[in-house]
Amino acid sequence: MEREIDAHEDIIRDFSEVPGIGFVSCSNDETVKLWTIDGSNLAELRGHQGFVFSVKTLDSGEIVSTSDDKTVKVWRDN
Amino acid sequence: MEREIDAHEDIIRDFSEVPGIGFVSCSNDETVKLWTIDGSNLAELRGHQGFVFSVKTLDSGEIVSTSDDKTVKVWRDN
Amino acid sequence: MEREIDAHEDIIRDFSEVPGIGFVSCSNDETVKLWTIDGSNLAELRGHQGFVFSVKTLDSGEIVSTSDDKTVKVWRDN
Amino acid sequence: MEREIDAHEDIIRDFSEVPGIGFVSCSNDETVKLWTIDGSNLAELRGHQGFVFSVKTLDSGEIVSTSDDKTVKVWRDN
Repeated sequence: MEREIDAHEDIIRDFSEVPGIGFVSCSNDETVKLWTIDGSNLAELRGHQGFVFSVKTLDSGEIVSTSDDKTVKVWRDN
Repeated sequence: MEREIDAHEDIIRDFSEVPGIGFVSCSNDETVKLWTIDGSNLAELRGHQGFVFSVKTLDSGEIVSTSDDKTVKVWRDN
Repeated sequence: MEREIDAHEDIIRDFSEVPGIGFVSCSNDETVKLWTIDGSNLAELRGHQGFVFSVKTLDSGEIVSTSDDKTVKVWRDN
Repeated sequence: MEREIDAHEDIIRDFSEVPGIGFVSCSNDETVKLWTIDGSNLAELRGHQGFVFSVKTLDSGEIVSTSDDKTVKVWRDN
């Protein structure tokens, strides 16, 4: 193993590569988190009020997440 | 967060980027919905009679969804 | 909707595009099925002895499926 | 069918192609395993202390897995 990241406070549902940065993960802890491949946390994206089921990086650059809170959230890392 | 979209009436199971348009989402509310990245709803694709588990955009342009209603549906945005 | 395919005898768990052919679907009915985008069934891939959770088309051309029967199966459409 | 691989000791949750090598699978048996397309096991990646939900190969070459043990693990095949 190269690296272990204590990433979330609950089970991790999905993750997606973020080209040039690292990856983004989502969890039952209601957060979406942005990481470098070295395991540094770059951002904690809060707003969902429920388990976050899936997260994807679009080719257009946005990070999109969906939740059992019935919303889709569009994030942009500024 | 850049944008929050009250996308569905039940939990959102999956979504997929639609290049040049935005993305498509699917839900336990039996619908597939097409969105711009700005959160405008372009289409509500009805026909499934059950939870819609997964949706993908094919390179050939079609949107394909599968459901616990045992059918695969092929959609084309005209 | 362009087309509805009565694809499986139980819920459909996953599907994947097969470039130049159409797509492949997998189901709790223990089968993997290959389809044209027009909904014609090209192959019914039998062998799993359990729900088929996921199916993907590799860039190397093989179709790979995994199941709760603890096996991975590699399929090639001849 | 071309090949059947008795890959894991419990249900297989996800897998991902590893370009030039084969694919990587993850399981409720807490392991991540690397395979050639011919079914030879190249590596058994141990460290997760829970079901391994998802595994992906990043374009940057790392294999990343997430688990209900709340960790993300980054693996590099040396």
